[in-house]
Amino acid sequence: MKHPFFKNYGPFNLSELLKDNKLNFFENLDDPIINDVKDLHSANTGDITFLHSKKYLSQSQKTKASYCITLENLKNYLPKNCKPICVDNVLLAISKVTSKFYPDSINDDFDNSVKKIEELKIYKSVKHGYNVLVGKNVQIGNNCLIGHNTIIEKNVKIGSDCSIGSNVIIRNSIIDDNVRILDNCVIGKKGFGFFPNNQNNLRYPHIGIVYIGQNSEIGCGATIDRGSMSNTVIGKNTFLDNQIHIAHNNKIGDNCIVAGQVGLAGSSTLGNNVMIGGQAGISGHLKIGNNVQIAGGSGVIKDIPDNSKVMGYPSKDLRQFLKDNK
Amino acid sequence: MKHPFFKNYGPFNLSELLKDNKLNFFENLDDPIINDVKDLHSANTGDITFLHSKKYLSQSQKTKASYCITLENLKNYLPKNCKPICVDNVLLAISKVTSKFYPDSINDDFDNSVKKIEELKIYKSVKHGYNVLVGKNVQIGNNCLIGHNTIIEKNVKIGSDCSIGSNVIIRNSIIDDNVRILDNCVIGKKGFGFFPNNQNNLRYPHIGIVYIGQNSEIGCGATIDRGSMSNTVIGKNTFLDNQIHIAHNNKIGDNCIVAGQVGLAGSSTLGNNVMIGGQAGISGHLKIGNNVQIAGGSGVIKDIPDNSKVMGYPSKDLRQFLKDNK
Amino acid sequence: MKHPFFKNYGPFNLSELLKDNKLNFFENLDDPIINDVKDLHSANTGDITFLHSKKYLSQSQKTKASYCITLENLKNYLPKNCKPICVDNVLLAISKVTSKFYPDSINDDFDNSVKKIEELKIYKSVKHGYNVLVGKNVQIGNNCLIGHNTIIEKNVKIGSDCSIGSNVIIRNSIIDDNVRILDNCVIGKKGFGFFPNNQNNLRYPHIGIVYIGQNSEIGCGATIDRGSMSNTVIGKNTFLDNQIHIAHNNKIGDNCIVAGQVGLAGSSTLGNNVMIGGQAGISGHLKIGNNVQIAGGSGVIKDIPDNSKVMGYPSKDLRQFLKDNK
Repeated sequence: MKHPFFKNYGPFNLSELLKDNKLNFFENLDDPIINDVKDLHSANTGDITFLHSKKYLSQSQKTKASYCITLENLKNYLPKNCKPICVDNVLLAISKVTSKFYPDSINDDFDNSVKKIEELKIYKSVKHGYNVLVGKNVQIGNNCLIGHNTIIEKNVKIGSDCSIGSNVIIRNSIIDDNVRILDNCVIGKKGFGFFPNNQNNLRYPHIGIVYIGQNSEIGCGATIDRGSMSNTVIGKNTFLDNQIHIAHNNKIGDNCIVAGQVGLAGSSTLGNNVMIGGQAGISGHLKIGNNVQIAGGSGVIKDIPDNSKVMGYPSKDLRQFLKDNK
Repeated sequence: MKHPFFKNYGPFNLSELLKDNKLNFFENLDDPIINDVKDLHSANTGDITFLHSKKYLSQSQKTKASYCITLENLKNYLPKNCKPICVDNVLLAISKVTSKFYPDSINDDFDNSVKKIEELKIYKSVKHGYNVLVGKNVQIGNNCLIGHNTIIEKNVKIGSDCSIGSNVIIRNSIIDDNVRILDNCVIGKKGFGFFPNNQNNLRYPHIGIVYIGQNSEIGCGATIDRGSMSNTVIGKNTFLDNQIHIAHNNKIGDNCIVAGQVGLAGSSTLGNNVMIGGQAGISGHLKIGNNVQIAGGSGVIKDIPDNSKVMGYPSKDLRQFLKDNK
Repeated sequence: MKHPFFKNYGPFNLSELLKDNKLNFFENLDDPIINDVKDLHSANTGDITFLHSKKYLSQSQKTKASYCITLENLKNYLPKNCKPICVDNVLLAISKVTSKFYPDSINDDFDNSVKKIEELKIYKSVKHGYNVLVGKNVQIGNNCLIGHNTIIEKNVKIGSDCSIGSNVIIRNSIIDDNVRILDNCVIGKKGFGFFPNNQNNLRYPHIGIVYIGQNSEIGCGATIDRGSMSNTVIGKNTFLDNQIHIAHNNKIGDNCIVAGQVGLAGSSTLGNNVMIGGQAGISGHLKIGNNVQIAGGSGVIKDIPDNSKVMGYPSKDLRQFLKDNK
């Protein structure tokens, strides 16, 4: 599947892709053509992917990718169709490869392609406030409202019956029908991901998008960052309160309720019907089950099974926490 | 008293009000006319009110309302003048009644009634920045300053000598004299209140306002939501730091000091001279006394009596906390 | 050194400076001329400074100031060149003196000196979005980008190759080369500092600035307040994630990484290569060493030596915390 937003500058010969990584992988090989870079699950024949942690072994064994950047000790967890390319730092290597395919995804400078919405005839039927700006490759469905000073930068698809507030900035996002995004949100900027490097950190590209499911609501002042290799997802009928931060690659299920000032660190998956109290924080790379309730102020640093209620920092069973803190 | 901002679409016959709730309350009764919907304390003869928790029994026994939506086990805590209407879900029922009286209070789409302040002669003496927008039913006192890109939506009253920053959005609020509201605040939007409902949560109306007392200051990026049935109140000479979230129905006293990133979950009452350290969180429906000091990072889940100092999550006596954590 | 931004209304005779403090210090003395008010470290001959805590004794003994407002029990920690002026409330007294020298630093009303950037020829080469405003005494280096609706108020110096996002507000700040400031930040406003006073708190002036070192990045929605007497400093190549609050006088070193929703209460010093997890809070007046790692959600209330890893509220050794919370 073609990337919905970022231009793929490929295909590239594998040798060219790996040049920046200073790898001599190809000495005795053909130099195949690589079409795209994708995660283990989405990659197809002709694509390159990556595997950097044992957490993803179930996905790695089923990948359709032709090549996989990985570690020496993980290379045997790939299927026959997928040739390992072993490196010391998988994320750094894949970052360089991704930058080659999608150079436009590295920086989030302001979008200077935007125009005043009044000047763009295709948005003639959109009800909008003063000073609304719209970039290239933007679709807006029927019966939408867009508030004052709001900027819909390039690469945004908004469904029908959506209400976008004032002072909102959106880019690289797909927003389904009947979603409300309240004032002052920033949706779809690059995530806080980079390789620390003395004097000048090295940014990695963020080719994921933000997807927000139908009937959802995003409170004032939220920041929802787009994903790096996969997407950041807010499910259907999920309501977020004010001042919430959803970092890159998080996936939140349907019918969730997230109270004010909650923060999600990145790359976690939350099930359906999850309720999170105010100011709770959820660490990265966790799996939170369905129907989980997380009390306000909790700090979650472990996976949580379905139907659990937790509280505390680090969070534990709610009743246990209340008993321990009588 | 007439609602200062939202239009009352009533009066209605009681039967019509309760139709959506599918109640057969009236079979053997007259069908009285109901003027308004109010909380226990504010309601008058001819109004309908609600009682959903034992927390409010002292108020229920003094209500002047003619009807009260309540639970079977609470119906005996009403005075003779007030007839109970028993339901299974009080908040859902009163929400439907309120929506009937005040349909304009349910959604907070951007205010498309605003105009550029330069075009509105009555604000000729207001010192303002570029791109300031003002809606209907707005009063601005003498000697006020309003910063760039700020939007004063409909239903706002600002006193004298106020300084409003840039990129601020205000609606449904009364702001007393000599108040400073710093950049990027959103004041007066609807609270985060709804009935969870698979696939499509049901919003309840927010007919309360935000009131900010004189000489107070609201820091950058604050979100202060208006109340549902009662108001959200910030007392006199109360200073809020940056990035604070005050949810619906909270009432904060005079001379309070609230440090950065604090969050109040909703419907709590804080006394006078309360000091709250950075990032502390206060759960809903609590009573915090006068002169209370809450240390930074605390999580308050119980009432706190006057003159207490607390710390911790859950918060306890400050000295005890420091002793326990030596 | 002349203040880079605020106008010094002095010099003043010492008697005039102290009049508001109702001190009769000069009965038997000449009435010297005072040039400026500065902190212990920066003050020179002819300046007045202050000493209010034993934390600063190493600095007090080396000050070049001619006068120092201090406490009776600290007056012997000053060198011979520096005459003590003893008061009951040092901060209140120095605040009044500072207000006399720098009255423009007390209030942060919106800057009505700004103009549309298109009207200011000296910024002709700056690539900018719609509705950008620029105040007096602003320098912008080569090859900078400034996003839509952004306001560069008076007293700002921006280096070369900087990328400023949309809806940003900056004042009283020096920003070095190659810095990225993302959308919705407020940089350089006065800190949350005042003397509590029934009915009407007394603001103290903030004559410090915000300095941001080269190659750094400030995430969306950050608030970085300028210092009171000293500056707020963000080091080189230090990356801040979204929704971070940095209060007045904090000094953060180089190559630091600060995750989302972190808050720093004020006047703390962080070394180089410090890593702070999401939602952590750091109390005021602390010293955090080099290479310190602070886990997400931690509450730091004590100094932390170099190379430590801490977690918890209050934070303690990381391994100890994890052991205690198994």
